[in-house]
Amino acid sequence: MTFPILYLRKGAERRLRSGHLWVYSNEVDIRRSPLTDFEPGVQAELRAANDKSLGTLFVNPHALICGRLISRDGRNGMTPKRLTERLEVALAMRERLFDRPFYRWVFGDSDGLSGLVIDRFDDTVVVQISTAGMELMKDAIVRAVQRLVHPAAIILKNDGKMRKIEGLDTYVEHVHGPEVSTLRVEENGVRFEVPLEGGQKTGWFYDHRVNRQRLQAYAPGKRVLDVFSYVGGWGIQAACAGASSVTCVDSSASAIDSVHHNARLNGLDNVETLEGDAFEALKALCDEKEKFDIVVLDPPALIPRRRDQKAGEQAYARLNQLGLRLLERDGILVSASCSMHLSQDRLTDIIRGGGRKIDRFVQLLEQGRQAPDHPVIPGIPETDYIKACFVRALTSFF
Amino acid sequence: MTFPILYLRKGAERRLRSGHLWVYSNEVDIRRSPLTDFEPGVQAELRAANDKSLGTLFVNPHALICGRLISRDGRNGMTPKRLTERLEVALAMRERLFDRPFYRWVFGDSDGLSGLVIDRFDDTVVVQISTAGMELMKDAIVRAVQRLVHPAAIILKNDGKMRKIEGLDTYVEHVHGPEVSTLRVEENGVRFEVPLEGGQKTGWFYDHRVNRQRLQAYAPGKRVLDVFSYVGGWGIQAACAGASSVTCVDSSASAIDSVHHNARLNGLDNVETLEGDAFEALKALCDEKEKFDIVVLDPPALIPRRRDQKAGEQAYARLNQLGLRLLERDGILVSASCSMHLSQDRLTDIIRGGGRKIDRFVQLLEQGRQAPDHPVIPGIPETDYIKACFVRALTSFF
Repeated sequence: MTFPILYLRKGAERRLRSGHLWVYSNEVDIRRSPLTDFEPGVQAELRAANDKSLGTLFVNPHALICGRLISRDGRNGMTPKRLTERLEVALAMRERLFDRPFYRWVFGDSDGLSGLVIDRFDDTVVVQISTAGMELMKDAIVRAVQRLVHPAAIILKNDGKMRKIEGLDTYVEHVHGPEVSTLRVEENGVRFEVPLEGGQKTGWFYDHRVNRQRLQAYAPGKRVLDVFSYVGGWGIQAACAGASSVTCVDSSASAIDSVHHNARLNGLDNVETLEGDAFEALKALCDEKEKFDIVVLDPPALIPRRRDQKAGEQAYARLNQLGLRLLERDGILVSASCSMHLSQDRLTDIIRGGGRKIDRFVQLLEQGRQAPDHPVIPGIPETDYIKACFVRALTSFF
Repeated sequence: MTFPILYLRKGAERRLRSGHLWVYSNEVDIRRSPLTDFEPGVQAELRAANDKSLGTLFVNPHALICGRLISRDGRNGMTPKRLTERLEVALAMRERLFDRPFYRWVFGDSDGLSGLVIDRFDDTVVVQISTAGMELMKDAIVRAVQRLVHPAAIILKNDGKMRKIEGLDTYVEHVHGPEVSTLRVEENGVRFEVPLEGGQKTGWFYDHRVNRQRLQAYAPGKRVLDVFSYVGGWGIQAACAGASSVTCVDSSASAIDSVHHNARLNGLDNVETLEGDAFEALKALCDEKEKFDIVVLDPPALIPRRRDQKAGEQAYARLNQLGLRLLERDGILVSASCSMHLSQDRLTDIIRGGGRKIDRFVQLLEQGRQAPDHPVIPGIPETDYIKACFVRALTSFF
């Protein structure tokens, strides 16, 4: 098969050679290969300025990330067969590592499928497509998913923000099986139900699964505060592991409803909720001199873009200080971040600063990262984003 | 209680203020407080150039690290009472997190006890003292250990390299209970026996316990190569988790003997050994076109000092490339490091480079760190040293 050719400017292939898979529009030699000649989502061959072939890619002339590598062989485009192979390779690893069919089956670039995310909830599969190239593969994706795991239902939850940038409309479509309104999730042996409509992203975040499993060792007999709780991922699991009481804080009324629902689902009667802004709620709890044995902070990305770095780090600092203040004498802070722009070291340093400020000796007990169904590709920093620091804060130790 | 006063040079307190606990000899104002006035191990009050008290510390005039903070209150020295309190605080965390009494009970600075390491093997306790200050507390340490956990045996394994720097002699002393020749260890449900004499450090390395637990998910049905195996920590646990076969490589004959002993102890008949230099052994296996499903690399610190950075990183690169070459088509590399001078990001980058060189697509599935009985103190980079990358290497994926 031959493809139209996209030429890079001289030297622009360096990032690709070191393992990245993206091409930015300012790296294209638009004199030799005007981007306007390419239809959104079309497959092309990528060549360096010296004409050397670098592989094939999906092109979207309207996006800043205008190219996403498919293969490092210029003859291999994305076909239904290659798509199925990659889905199989991704599935093999998840089936090997997880006892039960609840996981992120495909994590975009990390599984060689830029623009595609697939989450599996037993026999319900939720697909998210975020690029024009993958949108053109839609039917092949659905067919491959059907063939490989024979799900009862497949949902295209194509309502992400990225789609607008790629010039795609947003929609939710039940492409196979009965219409699903509730996702049934199982994580670390605990059950959850999440409404599909109104739920965040695919409905569930498997990326913290290992960190939430670690929380179980800390929880027995403890008073837990779960801040930015969403549907209760951390809090409900802590309660099931034997926490004496759990308080979930979230600003979304429907998330709070789900917390109560999930508490009942697991036969728990010690889960309370606080609906409201997390920062406000934490301040109020501080003013009331409330204390907890464990405080979990799992905010949305507070540094969404590089230019938000300073303000975002300040927000993390405020948040972590409030969390530390709310701890009992020998308390545990679980401080999570999903900002790729916040490194593990910066987060640790923010916690260090917070501890010094209120005169606590902090021991960093664990430095958790994202679960293995969210592989990191060294060379693609964008794939590495989850952190969870388990911190013990001691008063008057020194 | 009043102490002799050690004065810092102007501005030298900055590192201490940000959380560190050490004073270097070139930071001392030797005009105001000549180090030669201090006996090795004596307690003193530390003051900034402006006379402000910074706390108390152990002083050793002969060591580059000539001061180790005891307290941030200049009136609080190290007493048997304070020592016991810190042992209790350390114990409380381990008892909370571990079901069974096998763990590092005290990890030096991280537990507010600079110069002291205590490992617990059920009713046998191994103590390592590495500073002159702690050596003077020896009797109090033994008494406190007795009082807190009533062990059958306490061993002072004071044979570490650090002691020479501190001007201390090296010895092993069975200070309480019967003489112990074999340590009985339990980790992640697997039993080990390690000879006390000739064993490395305290005899066992609990620091990788969580990473070795994670290995269990990968091992079933797989052929595993455990390089720098020591007594079989990784390999035997993989075999117990269902690996089809395990090969342990170590240069020490007594370590190899222990591997066989520990295999028998756990009823395993599929553990082989290779005695020899790891690099040589890996090259030979490559030449023989041997392949494994899982390769574990857990070398000693290849960057022992900052000045070894370049040579050490090259050694890690050679090692990881050899490991990657030995993997089957869809293999797992577990690449560990205990060099504090090798950051997680550098190790990841070394693996990335190795993968690119032999044309493998590498997915970093897990980024493990040290277990919670080895707390990291943010502000003391020396406490943060263990990494374990779980890497999946795919051939001809792209």
